[in-house]
Amino acid sequence: MNKRLEQQILFILEIDKLKNIVRRTFLLDESRLENTAEHSWHAAVAVLLLSEYAPHTLDILRIVKMMLIHDIVEIDAGDTFLYDDSGNQDKADRERAAADRLFTLLPEDQAAELCLLWDEFEERSTPEAKFARGLDRLLPLMHNYYTKGSTWRKHNVTSDMVRKQNAIIADASPELWEFARTLIQDSVDKKYLLE
Amino acid sequence: MNKRLEQQILFILEIDKLKNIVRRTFLLDESRLENTAEHSWHAAVAVLLLSEYAPHTLDILRIVKMMLIHDIVEIDAGDTFLYDDSGNQDKADRERAAADRLFTLLPEDQAAELCLLWDEFEERSTPEAKFARGLDRLLPLMHNYYTKGSTWRKHNVTSDMVRKQNAIIADASPELWEFARTLIQDSVDKKYLLE
Repeated sequence: MNKRLEQQILFILEIDKLKNIVRRTFLLDESRLENTAEHSWHAAVAVLLLSEYAPHTLDILRIVKMMLIHDIVEIDAGDTFLYDDSGNQDKADRERAAADRLFTLLPEDQAAELCLLWDEFEERSTPEAKFARGLDRLLPLMHNYYTKGSTWRKHNVTSDMVRKQNAIIADASPELWEFARTLIQDSVDKKYLLE
Repeated sequence: MNKRLEQQILFILEIDKLKNIVRRTFLLDESRLENTAEHSWHAAVAVLLLSEYAPHTLDILRIVKMMLIHDIVEIDAGDTFLYDDSGNQDKADRERAAADRLFTLLPEDQAAELCLLWDEFEERSTPEAKFARGLDRLLPLMHNYYTKGSTWRKHNVTSDMVRKQNAIIADASPELWEFARTLIQDSVDKKYLLE
């Protein structure tokens, strides 16, 4: 096998570990917590279906690529809960080290491409990244709403925290943020979420 | 919420069920069987990394879309094991009925697009579909090889069966088929696979 293909295969084998990274979000049937690999799939499909709500015409392949690789760093850095203030203090450093190790398993050109895509996503530096980041927030919000606040109730999350952390959905799409706001308000009304 | 967005959200919620569809393939650490949602993610990332081995320049977004949606029908039809001859007899009918129910949850234009993509994948009617189908075979082959034939041994699969079912990888990429053939031969030599 040539060296290049060997590196690519090694990376593909390595990222199998993402299937064992457990998030705080419950599946909609509440049978178990979601893992990061299946979340990445779900979010990528959502991009395909909801991109029409972006305020501009976007490069869909670029968004899908970001969505597919954005959480691979969790193989080393673990999943950091959105509402965990102390975990989020060193999240950037932990994930940067993970990106350095994981993406450089690949041939140099592909490592560089994935690193750049991951930076773009993290920094929300383009309309594509803003859309990806918004959908990455919208999905767990939906899971919480449709499981009557399962994760929020477990971790004493309040509506202020949810509004603050999800406000970036507005940069993805005003229409999707309007939808998200309706879910948040209805969650308060129905006592899924503390006011 | 407008009707169109409502249909899209309903579909996104419905496909959460794919995370509970269990395949015959083991994770590389053999801790459990893989589910179809995380397999779809893994295969989509593999497309991004290996498309350079396709014999022609392909529409990558089209392949990734196919990969992300190709197994959604398993929500209704279940996962049919590649080497289960009786299960494969009515697979097409079961999956067609599933596609009719699931994709038509979406607005008409998106339902039509996903149905066409799914047909294209099933029929291997384009170079994009041939590439997607090839990688969809290559990944479980890799999982089997790197877990010393875990699924093959459990189900008494022979090397003839593996060679026959995986030969379509050659239509995705001669180079990747060469890699796959090496894994198969080495599996026989190492007794992971019955000759």
